[in-house]
Amino acid sequence: MTTQEDAGGLFTPDRVAVVGATDRDGAIGRAIIDNLSDFDNDVIAVNPGRDDVLGYPCYPDLGDAPPVDLAVVVVPPQIVVDAVRDAGQAGVENVVVITAGFSETGGDGADRERDLVAVADDYDINLVGPNSLGLLSTPTGLNATFGPSNALPGNLSFMSQSGAFITAVLDWANDQGIGFKDIASLGNKAVLSETDFMQAWADDPDTNVILGYLEGVDDGREFIDDAREVTQDTPAVVVKSGRTEAGAQAASSHTGTIAGSEAAYEAGFKQAGVVRAENVQELFDFARALDGLPMPDSEDVAVITNAGGPGVMATDAVGDSRLSMASFEDDTIDALQGSMPDEANVYNPVDVIGDAEIDRFRTAIDTVLADEHVGCALVLSAPTAVIDYTELSGVITALQEKHNKPVVTCLMGGERTEQATDVLGDAGIPNYFDPARAIGSLDALAVQREVESRDYQAPTAFDVDRDAARDILEDAADRGATRLGVEAMDLLDAYGIPTPTGDVVDSPDAARRVARDIEGDVVMKIVSPDILHKSDIGGVKVGVETDAVADAYEDLITRATNYQPDATILGIQVQEMVDVDAGTETILGMNRDPQFGPLLLFGLGGIFVEILEDTSVRVAPVSEREAGDMIDDLDSAPLLRGARGRDPADEAAITEAIQRLSQLVTDFPAILELDVNPLLATGDSATALDVQLTIDPDEL
Amino acid sequence: MTTQEDAGGLFTPDRVAVVGATDRDGAIGRAIIDNLSDFDNDVIAVNPGRDDVLGYPCYPDLGDAPPVDLAVVVVPPQIVVDAVRDAGQAGVENVVVITAGFSETGGDGADRERDLVAVADDYDINLVGPNSLGLLSTPTGLNATFGPSNALPGNLSFMSQSGAFITAVLDWANDQGIGFKDIASLGNKAVLSETDFMQAWADDPDTNVILGYLEGVDDGREFIDDAREVTQDTPAVVVKSGRTEAGAQAASSHTGTIAGSEAAYEAGFKQAGVVRAENVQELFDFARALDGLPMPDSEDVAVITNAGGPGVMATDAVGDSRLSMASFEDDTIDALQGSMPDEANVYNPVDVIGDAEIDRFRTAIDTVLADEHVGCALVLSAPTAVIDYTELSGVITALQEKHNKPVVTCLMGGERTEQATDVLGDAGIPNYFDPARAIGSLDALAVQREVESRDYQAPTAFDVDRDAARDILEDAADRGATRLGVEAMDLLDAYGIPTPTGDVVDSPDAARRVARDIEGDVVMKIVSPDILHKSDIGGVKVGVETDAVADAYEDLITRATNYQPDATILGIQVQEMVDVDAGTETILGMNRDPQFGPLLLFGLGGIFVEILEDTSVRVAPVSEREAGDMIDDLDSAPLLRGARGRDPADEAAITEAIQRLSQLVTDFPAILELDVNPLLATGDSATALDVQLTIDPDEL
Repeated sequence: MTTQEDAGGLFTPDRVAVVGATDRDGAIGRAIIDNLSDFDNDVIAVNPGRDDVLGYPCYPDLGDAPPVDLAVVVVPPQIVVDAVRDAGQAGVENVVVITAGFSETGGDGADRERDLVAVADDYDINLVGPNSLGLLSTPTGLNATFGPSNALPGNLSFMSQSGAFITAVLDWANDQGIGFKDIASLGNKAVLSETDFMQAWADDPDTNVILGYLEGVDDGREFIDDAREVTQDTPAVVVKSGRTEAGAQAASSHTGTIAGSEAAYEAGFKQAGVVRAENVQELFDFARALDGLPMPDSEDVAVITNAGGPGVMATDAVGDSRLSMASFEDDTIDALQGSMPDEANVYNPVDVIGDAEIDRFRTAIDTVLADEHVGCALVLSAPTAVIDYTELSGVITALQEKHNKPVVTCLMGGERTEQATDVLGDAGIPNYFDPARAIGSLDALAVQREVESRDYQAPTAFDVDRDAARDILEDAADRGATRLGVEAMDLLDAYGIPTPTGDVVDSPDAARRVARDIEGDVVMKIVSPDILHKSDIGGVKVGVETDAVADAYEDLITRATNYQPDATILGIQVQEMVDVDAGTETILGMNRDPQFGPLLLFGLGGIFVEILEDTSVRVAPVSEREAGDMIDDLDSAPLLRGARGRDPADEAAITEAIQRLSQLVTDFPAILELDVNPLLATGDSATALDVQLTIDPDEL
Repeated sequence: MTTQEDAGGLFTPDRVAVVGATDRDGAIGRAIIDNLSDFDNDVIAVNPGRDDVLGYPCYPDLGDAPPVDLAVVVVPPQIVVDAVRDAGQAGVENVVVITAGFSETGGDGADRERDLVAVADDYDINLVGPNSLGLLSTPTGLNATFGPSNALPGNLSFMSQSGAFITAVLDWANDQGIGFKDIASLGNKAVLSETDFMQAWADDPDTNVILGYLEGVDDGREFIDDAREVTQDTPAVVVKSGRTEAGAQAASSHTGTIAGSEAAYEAGFKQAGVVRAENVQELFDFARALDGLPMPDSEDVAVITNAGGPGVMATDAVGDSRLSMASFEDDTIDALQGSMPDEANVYNPVDVIGDAEIDRFRTAIDTVLADEHVGCALVLSAPTAVIDYTELSGVITALQEKHNKPVVTCLMGGERTEQATDVLGDAGIPNYFDPARAIGSLDALAVQREVESRDYQAPTAFDVDRDAARDILEDAADRGATRLGVEAMDLLDAYGIPTPTGDVVDSPDAARRVARDIEGDVVMKIVSPDILHKSDIGGVKVGVETDAVADAYEDLITRATNYQPDATILGIQVQEMVDVDAGTETILGMNRDPQFGPLLLFGLGGIFVEILEDTSVRVAPVSEREAGDMIDDLDSAPLLRGARGRDPADEAAITEAIQRLSQLVTDFPAILELDVNPLLATGDSATALDVQLTIDPDEL
């Protein structure tokens, strides 16, 4: 894969060539030629067997053709690689491979795809597909797909890993009046991936919102780093399918790829600033709101209604969301009291009551939108004899523009809403029957508002002893160990994560020396990769006095040898006694996700992780803010903050331990998994009491 | 309120009178007369000032009119009570009061409503309203509302506490082709409430599904008891607004009633077998599925699709629901392998792939629906050149009928789906663009399936000492105590909830006597309603030997007196030592909800209740099954079941303690709140170690 992909040029060609164009009915090469008939610029055909195709000039190959900016390849799979090489030799920078029969079929197809990538790399080609439905860009009328529908113009740009989903969406969107700027069917993503399209659209002034249907992300870390720059200015709404265990299985059998874990996607998308939609309805609800409405200044919603019941439903929807009901300023209350009848409710939700004519609605909306405590609003109306929805929609669009705050509507009803819905839609205001959907749209704005307010920090680079850490890992690798335990505590030391004083020793004398340097009694433990449940065989001694350390050493070794004569014994750990009751046991762990790489996990120990699954996950490396968020995420966080008379833990110490572990696992891809359990959080420290890790020596 | 309401007669009158009918434009009395023009049976007007109204015969009062089965009252509020009395005297059994200005306005209005209820009671009138939009029943063309729309015929019966919501729904439903059997606007529910309508519709063979928009339930216990009989045969889908804290506040200011807690509604609706919808979209999605589709035999879904991506989305939706993806029988796999191309996926979700024509779809659907492991199915299609949706919908409806299993569809697209959606809709099959909504419909069937499978048990009547309990409460009342502590442990004893051996004593000698009967050392505690934190002042002694008991008594009394000279000291509790580490501390509590009455709460103690809010709630009295469900509900239930090497608790003992407390609080409405904290759950018992309660002596 090259690093200089630029997907932007794909959508603005001056001349498009269809390689494999034909006039044969039912052929894909014919469908694409037909769809290109509305293209404003040049179209040529490439097919050695013809002189022209449906009136377009036809060339035997791209080398003989005039310069082409985009080649759409629909030849049989066996000759695709040659066709793309020809394109490269002819200087074509952008290629879409429609043809299927590549990695999605395995075997020969996968080999073919590798060849295709190599050729694209050689010639620096921005290649979409293979196995793509094609591309679409409405400003120039470009429809280089073989789908049955064209798109309406608009400012949403849409990428999809499912071509079928694009055909379904286009047919539906045309009916709904939803338009698009560009559409890309990603196909197998052999070269260009979701990240490339996001970057291209971030630079496109005509793209207001990026939409994605994704079944996976190729390189999670790259996605996070690139997408977070995009989403600071351009909202991206994504449905990731295969969210659930059942769905992930289905996705895996559909695309043949191993899915990353849902926890990784959840964390990665959040870190990337992507607005995640759970389903198709949310995808478009959110996209329309982000396209048409200004950003709110706050998350405080005003509801203005002529019907109490639906007003309560809207308030429930606010309660379900991250939004709050606005508390009006006194002036607003006074103004409403002065202008509304006595039966009206002048507090939020404002009920102008059923006999409200258009003027009363106008006054109420205008008054409420002028309130500085109001960030956004929902106007809700049941049908009455005195309200004309089209007239009301004109009032709403004018007041929305006047106050420049996001407004959504529920003008409830059937046919009578149609004209009003059009008027509102033209002004970017979505109208729904269900108040919950309208509030959901405002909620999406709140998510994006938070994303745009982020100040992404670089991960802190702590001063660590990387060489010492490498030595520990290499020593382990040299002795053939892949699973390490307490003998690797020095790895944490090297990265500045506090551990109790102590060492692993291999003689009674050494044990005594270590114990002498430790104040008070010590804990002693067998260190052996072969003995998992050390306590069960008496392999742990607590409260050993310095004088008894040598005898305890011999005793522990004897027990271990008796228990399992062939066990590898790395020594005995002699460690400072730590009072675990003086703090809260937490767990800090890492595993590697196939897509996102090192995934940090933090949670409270024992039942909190194992039974209640109350954990927080982030893709490493993490910044200080992201590490702190991992504490905030936990339902059990109050237990670290002094709940129930506990001593509050030192959150800064925990946050630092998370960041230091993040640095360690980022520096050493050889660490496949690592668990610090427990990380004891006290009022002034976060100390690792035990560690287990798995390493891959080949990555050292 | 009478107990013999029968709302059924409201919808089948032979003659309707409009009391307050007029031909004045814009008057509500005119709107109702206009809406009654399609009524199949007789309409008369009642108005002393006219001879006829718009061609209907008009009478000065109901006494002079021919017999009337339903009177619709729209006279001014001041004369409504007289008009209803006239109706009662004339033998009219059913009355709808449209007029507003009753309890919803407070003050005089509330008085008027009390008079209205009294009159309805005197004459045994089934009264709807006041403040109602009216009634509607499509079989006879009855539209006794002042709303702007009529309803299409159908088999949904709909009650709503918001008249405006009915007007909004009707306008929208007509557009969607959704029909109704009966509609009732409940208004202030002065006489007839949601329960009466549910019972009437349960007896109505033309009502397939009951829909409700409710802002509250009048009598929660009655609702549970009556609704659970209804929902065994007739599904009821309800949106309860005011679910959230914000929504409850809005509902309270809208209706003037104090809302019951959401926890009570959640528990009560579940116990009543009501299918709860979160929003308007779910209300109608669920209702349509329950109306049109047969009940599934299992919760195993098959997905048949021609598009992999949307198939994965559907699978995600299954993962989000209580449904599972069906595992096909071997014969099904073989049959699919024999009939599908190699590229097809013959496992669930079945992908017939994009070039599937109608026959391949038919074969796949037929094969899959024949599988005994398949309870229900989703057929999903993206638009392709070879599939005609109308043809496909014919295939689906025929196969649905053949196999009699519920089938939902996502024929994705816009205009091209319209005709197919009609064909499917006529067969009761909902078609959605979003797979999540289609699967949500099947999920609603699964909820109703569980409800219909319930075998409601009566609460167990344990053999308890009710008189002893009454004595304890009366003694407390006599000494003016409303808050009781450990001195009330005998209350639990009386109801058979195990407590440690011991007693509250008022002399050193008595203390010694009690201690002598207890094996081993004892715990001694000050018993005083005025001293809350007994441990903090040294008011608790643990491990007191029998010989030391008398001295300890004196010491505790001295401490208490020194700490708070004016404290009421009820004595000293002398109790068997209980090893709390030998079990799990749980909390069993009760408070009273304004609508639902006694609400039981169960959860694990400490952080589980206070920080993680992991509790389960039921309306008392509970059956054995309901009590057992309270354990199942908890996220932390594994901790009672041997997780992490614990001894499993005796669940039967916990279940029995819950039921016995249920019986106690049901027997004594004087107990306003009660907390057993902790209830120590061990391997062979559930023992109450402490209790606190609040009583209302007036209820004794």
